[in-house]
Amino acid sequence: MTTRQRGAGTNQEGVRRHNLGTLLRHVHRTGEISRAELTSLMGLNRSTIAGLVGELAELGLTEHADPATGSAGAGRRTAGRPSAGVRVVDAGPYVVAVDLGVDRAVVARVGLGGRIAERAEAAINEDTEAWQVGAAVAALVRHVVSWAPEHAPLLGIGISVPGLVRRTDGLVRQAPNLGWRDVSFGSIVLAALDLDVPVRLGNDADLGALAEHHRGAGVGIDDLIYISGNVGVGAGVITGGVRLQGAGGYAGEVGHMNFDPRGPLCHCGSRGCWETAVGAHAIAAAVKSPADQVVRLGEVLDEITAPPRELRPIAASIGRGLADVVNSYNPSLVILGGYFQPLFRLMRSEVTAGLAERTMAPALESVRLAVPGLGADSVLLGAAEIALEPVFADPVASLATAITDARSRLAG
Amino acid sequence: MTTRQRGAGTNQEGVRRHNLGTLLRHVHRTGEISRAELTSLMGLNRSTIAGLVGELAELGLTEHADPATGSAGAGRRTAGRPSAGVRVVDAGPYVVAVDLGVDRAVVARVGLGGRIAERAEAAINEDTEAWQVGAAVAALVRHVVSWAPEHAPLLGIGISVPGLVRRTDGLVRQAPNLGWRDVSFGSIVLAALDLDVPVRLGNDADLGALAEHHRGAGVGIDDLIYISGNVGVGAGVITGGVRLQGAGGYAGEVGHMNFDPRGPLCHCGSRGCWETAVGAHAIAAAVKSPADQVVRLGEVLDEITAPPRELRPIAASIGRGLADVVNSYNPSLVILGGYFQPLFRLMRSEVTAGLAERTMAPALESVRLAVPGLGADSVLLGAAEIALEPVFADPVASLATAITDARSRLAG
Repeated sequence: MTTRQRGAGTNQEGVRRHNLGTLLRHVHRTGEISRAELTSLMGLNRSTIAGLVGELAELGLTEHADPATGSAGAGRRTAGRPSAGVRVVDAGPYVVAVDLGVDRAVVARVGLGGRIAERAEAAINEDTEAWQVGAAVAALVRHVVSWAPEHAPLLGIGISVPGLVRRTDGLVRQAPNLGWRDVSFGSIVLAALDLDVPVRLGNDADLGALAEHHRGAGVGIDDLIYISGNVGVGAGVITGGVRLQGAGGYAGEVGHMNFDPRGPLCHCGSRGCWETAVGAHAIAAAVKSPADQVVRLGEVLDEITAPPRELRPIAASIGRGLADVVNSYNPSLVILGGYFQPLFRLMRSEVTAGLAERTMAPALESVRLAVPGLGADSVLLGAAEIALEPVFADPVASLATAITDARSRLAG
Repeated sequence: MTTRQRGAGTNQEGVRRHNLGTLLRHVHRTGEISRAELTSLMGLNRSTIAGLVGELAELGLTEHADPATGSAGAGRRTAGRPSAGVRVVDAGPYVVAVDLGVDRAVVARVGLGGRIAERAEAAINEDTEAWQVGAAVAALVRHVVSWAPEHAPLLGIGISVPGLVRRTDGLVRQAPNLGWRDVSFGSIVLAALDLDVPVRLGNDADLGALAEHHRGAGVGIDDLIYISGNVGVGAGVITGGVRLQGAGGYAGEVGHMNFDPRGPLCHCGSRGCWETAVGAHAIAAAVKSPADQVVRLGEVLDEITAPPRELRPIAASIGRGLADVVNSYNPSLVILGGYFQPLFRLMRSEVTAGLAERTMAPALESVRLAVPGLGADSVLLGAAEIALEPVFADPVASLATAITDARSRLAG
């Protein structure tokens, strides 16, 4: 009997932590939410919700919000009395998100609610070794953490990589445009920081899709693709509301689709991959931007008002490659990230015509192209999301592994 | 109180029917299973299992099996006393499965347990109208039903189509190689039969993947692709154990991937699709089989012992196209169906070399190519599976819509 009772107790504790995490996720997604809405969303009674809210506040994860007059409280409020709300703590726990590109790294301190509190970036030179990139990223991490509120807990680090990341342990198996094979980049960054905090890695396009699905252009859309159009090109796929990962975590490598068997060699070793026709280097050549200034390509494209003729075939090739993507996954939304975003703004009709040229009619009819709802920050915010996942699984356990003196330790 | 009691009663009835269906699904998957194994698999006690087994027997869906001496009963049998078993009824309820190809239709009567009791096939001439194809299929259905045990209930019809089938209602939106657009083929077949019985439609490759996952080469494998290599080429995708359908049900149209921008025109209207390089017409040309004899291509390939040189580039193109498929979905198993099956047997090294040439290393390392475990019947058995799905959802309701005098009615 003792065993059974203990079992039941442990199970109850598990259920309570699960409910705490779920409630916190709702607060995170909305930024602020009424208790009445939480009662309705979670199917728990008011006193249970009040208990969970109290515990999250004690843990320093959320705080009381005055009754909102807008949409908050619309759930089941008692007549005329708006329900009290819960919101994330601005000066509270945070994660560090890293968006590692081929040409630059962006690092941000991100709180619950997905707010970017601080950001820093640096150019990455070509042919830099992984440990040097790790050191550069660590310096950016120190910078953004130095501005964190004192004693605010660092919950974890999320890192986006332009390559194939093994789902089981986050090992970077291959990042063709960085020249990496089997790089344990998470461990490299932690070593450079001399810090032991949970670190998670993901593929850039996968994380872009995740963030856009949670709080960007893809909210409420179950079948969507996020395309990262940078030096390399990849797809993050949400299908039936779930991330498509594949057996090892490597699904969505559409940048290496066969595009032209007579095309140029790709960094991956194959010939004529799609990204050789539409990646940053091809775009830079078309706008006559110096090859060593690819990092400035976004600004160059943003300044263009009348697109040069040389960009047209690239826009058409983006569309024709997207046709393969749409034929393969049948999404209802394709979000064009990276350099594809300004290109789509400049040459929407060329991209759309290329797509229409090769997409099967039923799939074409039901798909929409869009720019990211999160601007250039989709991938960065996706990196924050994977760093927060353990927090929503179990806030108590996550706070136990958090680092409360990160600011002073990293300042050292 | 009356309302609440009725509600609870309805809910209990729903749970019971759900359990009935789940138990039936276990019997279907295994053919024969012990009560002890069912107790263990379903987490229900022995008397509940006994009650459900009794009800399924009364419904004529299963029957008692003598205690098996082999693997059956291994679950939780009492010492020395093998547990009594349950098996499907051979002369019991059945579905009709239709595998409609571009060049031929195969129709089978399939019982619970996935056993093909009777089959018939006919060639389909090119440029035949949908209603003529429907009439030909109906004739085959009459034939296989004429051999059914008298009064055995016809539960439903499942139809595989080489095209894009809308997931909501089974409308054939587009079947390029049949020249079909928006054809309600299920209704056409039912009208030709003058019968009203549940009918479900699916894409050929999707159904091949489903059947191979349930009882073929892909049992227990969560990330797999079935490639239908026929006149057209398509992929059925299982990812994370679930069918990848896409927003409308059109995912997996990999036959229309861009393969060679300077290649021949495809039936879909695009140029250089993968299926123009590797589909049945390209294979027939390579082995100098007359274009109007594509229906006999399987036999021709089966007779070849030393493959002619002309087949080599086709085998390499199969591999190179599969690379795009593997890069896109990252499966751990690719099952080569249709004409790809004999080609793979003849030229495994050429296919494998083409795959290796373009697949990203981490995805290549973890993928295996295989021939179907169900031979040429994967798609046909997948059509039976979708016809059986409503039976496993609710056996009682399904028997209520079944037709018990199908044999005499169709004989008329």
